[in-house]
Amino acid sequence: MKIVVIGASGIVGTAVAEELTGRGHEVVRASRRGPVVVDMAEPATVEELFRSVPDVDAVVCCAANAPTADLVEAPDDEFLAGLPGKLLGQVRLARAALHHLRDGGSVTLTGGTFVEPMPGGSFGALVNAGLAAFVEAAAGELPRGLRLNLVAPGWVRESLEAFGWDPDPGVPAAEVARVYADLVDGTGTGQVVPVTAR
Amino acid sequence: MKIVVIGASGIVGTAVAEELTGRGHEVVRASRRGPVVVDMAEPATVEELFRSVPDVDAVVCCAANAPTADLVEAPDDEFLAGLPGKLLGQVRLARAALHHLRDGGSVTLTGGTFVEPMPGGSFGALVNAGLAAFVEAAAGELPRGLRLNLVAPGWVRESLEAFGWDPDPGVPAAEVARVYADLVDGTGTGQVVPVTAR
Repeated sequence: MKIVVIGASGIVGTAVAEELTGRGHEVVRASRRGPVVVDMAEPATVEELFRSVPDVDAVVCCAANAPTADLVEAPDDEFLAGLPGKLLGQVRLARAALHHLRDGGSVTLTGGTFVEPMPGGSFGALVNAGLAAFVEAAAGELPRGLRLNLVAPGWVRESLEAFGWDPDPGVPAAEVARVYADLVDGTGTGQVVPVTAR
Repeated sequence: MKIVVIGASGIVGTAVAEELTGRGHEVVRASRRGPVVVDMAEPATVEELFRSVPDVDAVVCCAANAPTADLVEAPDDEFLAGLPGKLLGQVRLARAALHHLRDGGSVTLTGGTFVEPMPGGSFGALVNAGLAAFVEAAAGELPRGLRLNLVAPGWVRESLEAFGWDPDPGVPAAEVARVYADLVDGTGTGQVVPVTAR
């Protein structure tokens, strides 16, 4: 399969691209900088992606950051930081992909799982739950045998290490990547798959 | 209590204002047209509401429409129609209210419940699930004894009648209104209360 991985320079995206390549797929790496540019917060770049990379079977989006922000004090743009890219960008990506993917192709998005409520995580919780509900509801309306799924990772081990935090609550990126690749290689649709260490 | 009801000219908002008035509360009716103007899709009008109506104990938002739209064919603005008002407007309202309500006051928002998946309802599902998760997560971070809850109505009987549809799957607006009023009068926070006929 020809598969576009968005966010391919991040910790999870790199692991997903490697996993899919290892399984014999042709992987096109897309990110905000690099030969194939896409910025999930910029709708025009998402449309341009499908024009510049034709005949795609699957798209996997790992570019999905939603930083925490204080409910009471954060300014609006900081509080809603997960909106343009992670929430709306991924909804737009899924809708655009439906017009461009080959028959039977798939879209795999990234949500998230809070193992316990996180201070400053209320808008992130909105984004994650919203994306999960969208994927479950939209799956029943997909044309041409297309599929739509969501991976909802908790902490990733390498991300915790990069922050200088205890990596133990995290799942290794390679393990998270196998969940994405299994959804791409599988037949399921409307699936929401949490990936956490417990 | 002094309570602002937003969307007070709609079917549910009218019933909520009547129920709260009947319980002896002072109700300020706000809507897109009328003496107290607020448009949930216009952040400035939400801020202005709290400046023009001081010393509020509770705010109830019943202005929360999110029309269905086809996943594949609807243009972006039509597909995302529930975004500016129902989703972002209510998040902004809740955050603004935290700075203006009296100590121990409450915010009651409107989500929704699909009894079964509805064609064209994928973004509506995102909005409803997102708001529910936001309310549950944000409740843990509220200052000054403030409370935040969500009513998630399914079909309302009078709305079905207005569409010329079979009203039987609907819950009477007066019954939905009692759920809002109970949350205002109660002590709970972070509650998400579905209201459906089954």
